[in-house]
Amino acid sequence: MTPRVLIAPGEVPVGARDAVVAGGGVVVDRPEDADLIVWMTPTDPSGLPELLAAAPGVPVQLPWAGVEPFLPLIGPDRPWACGKGVYAPPVAELALAMLLAGFRDLVAYGRRTAWSDRTGRNLHGARVVLVGGGGISEELARLLAPFAPRLTVVRRDADRPFPGAERVLPTSALHDAVADADAVVLTLALTDATRGLIDADVLAAMRSDAWLVNVARGGVVVTDDLVAALRDGTIGGAALDVTDPEPLPEGHPLWSLPNCLITPHAGSTLAMNAPLIAARTRANVARLAAGQPLIGLVDPTAGY
Amino acid sequence: MTPRVLIAPGEVPVGARDAVVAGGGVVVDRPEDADLIVWMTPTDPSGLPELLAAAPGVPVQLPWAGVEPFLPLIGPDRPWACGKGVYAPPVAELALAMLLAGFRDLVAYGRRTAWSDRTGRNLHGARVVLVGGGGISEELARLLAPFAPRLTVVRRDADRPFPGAERVLPTSALHDAVADADAVVLTLALTDATRGLIDADVLAAMRSDAWLVNVARGGVVVTDDLVAALRDGTIGGAALDVTDPEPLPEGHPLWSLPNCLITPHAGSTLAMNAPLIAARTRANVARLAAGQPLIGLVDPTAGY
Repeated sequence: MTPRVLIAPGEVPVGARDAVVAGGGVVVDRPEDADLIVWMTPTDPSGLPELLAAAPGVPVQLPWAGVEPFLPLIGPDRPWACGKGVYAPPVAELALAMLLAGFRDLVAYGRRTAWSDRTGRNLHGARVVLVGGGGISEELARLLAPFAPRLTVVRRDADRPFPGAERVLPTSALHDAVADADAVVLTLALTDATRGLIDADVLAAMRSDAWLVNVARGGVVVTDDLVAALRDGTIGGAALDVTDPEPLPEGHPLWSLPNCLITPHAGSTLAMNAPLIAARTRANVARLAAGQPLIGLVDPTAGY
Repeated sequence: MTPRVLIAPGEVPVGARDAVVAGGGVVVDRPEDADLIVWMTPTDPSGLPELLAAAPGVPVQLPWAGVEPFLPLIGPDRPWACGKGVYAPPVAELALAMLLAGFRDLVAYGRRTAWSDRTGRNLHGARVVLVGGGGISEELARLLAPFAPRLTVVRRDADRPFPGAERVLPTSALHDAVADADAVVLTLALTDATRGLIDADVLAAMRSDAWLVNVARGGVVVTDDLVAALRDGTIGGAALDVTDPEPLPEGHPLWSLPNCLITPHAGSTLAMNAPLIAARTRANVARLAAGQPLIGLVDPTAGY
């Protein structure tokens, strides 16, 4: 079969059209003709309900890994695929950059205008806890391997093995997992079960020199608790690519903390995204043509 | 034989004494009794000439990889070993931290107090030129391997192979080597032949978005030329763990450039150094006991 693909909303980018064709499909204009809807705007579902109504049962591919804005629409009546795993390489790269910047004090050095004492500590051999067992954690573990880290993975299903991890623990063991960590990296999905997971209790369980890196979603962390923990030295520092609220408003206390680095959800930039999501679209069109299930399927019950 | 080791100057640190014993040696107090002199201060040779006169032909181990302050003393009348390779792991770690900070714009983000556009580019697949083929470059290549970089090594002897490099070029080909590089990392020794190697001409040969990382010695770069290149956008940015002059004085133009990160010769801190140099001392004492040549021998002609 030659999958007929509706790309929406708005004008169809050349790269998306090329990806459909490269996957063996054709681009169509009307939802009634579509075998697959490729939705391009990551946080705005406006207009999508009308397409869904006109194309019952037709699968949808969403662009980002996080699908929070689409949850009211996602149900078992059709397959929903998301950008799960697509952006793992650039996001994991940023997570490693943040770990190294934290451990080697680059944020503090970058803000100075005078020579200072030599400080910092090694990532080599460090105890790193990855909270989340998905594509970002897998890719980060791969990048970390030459540093011979002592890796703990905290995930919903602790029975699933994780390559390179010393320990795989369930989310219920989070306090124990973080207790001796040099760094805790958040890569997990934001769901009702993970919202506010990193609160004052978890932060208090961490070492006073430990770094927290968040490349997941801002809502996984209780922001006020984190501000307090950074202010009073409960933890060593934080590097946040995502915040709650996001964007973080000017004047927010996080901006002025000496041990906090904030990047503007830059785990994967538009320039980095384009070829990655195009490759996923091509793969999914090809799978549809071959009668195979889509890659990156959302579990409607889990919400990611 | 049980090597008799003089540790100087000043009081003998516990770690150094333990390392001698662990290597099968004993610590002695007088140069006349010594089979090996372990010199502990990295930049100050005061007092060493007297020891050398009292212990003709006795080998010396110096603590750092760079031996510039000791060059007037170093000759063919005895073996001189240095910290060559000892600090490669922490220094290469800092070089990777700087590369990632540069590529992912962490210096700029770290100085902001407001949300901004997503910027940055990937280290993954980048063209990286390592100038210097020693232990730091080898260790950095190992850390870079998961990023699948396109690696060029520039070294004195281009006939020596370098694991993981696409190209090994002689220093005379430096201009060609840097022309298409995303980043140029300096790891080479400072000698008469390398002083001022990175000048306006080399910087002009680099791409306007390329980063320069210096974890070698400040004198390898012509500082005024670098300031000009950073100011006028000849290159994208610089991350410098070493400077000329060093320490870099307050008010120096490098401190206020938006695309420049300076760390205070923190490639390896005192805390990182202690176990690394102790391990080298232990190894060299054991080699002396076994009648083998010392590790990290300085070539008196090359000056490193």
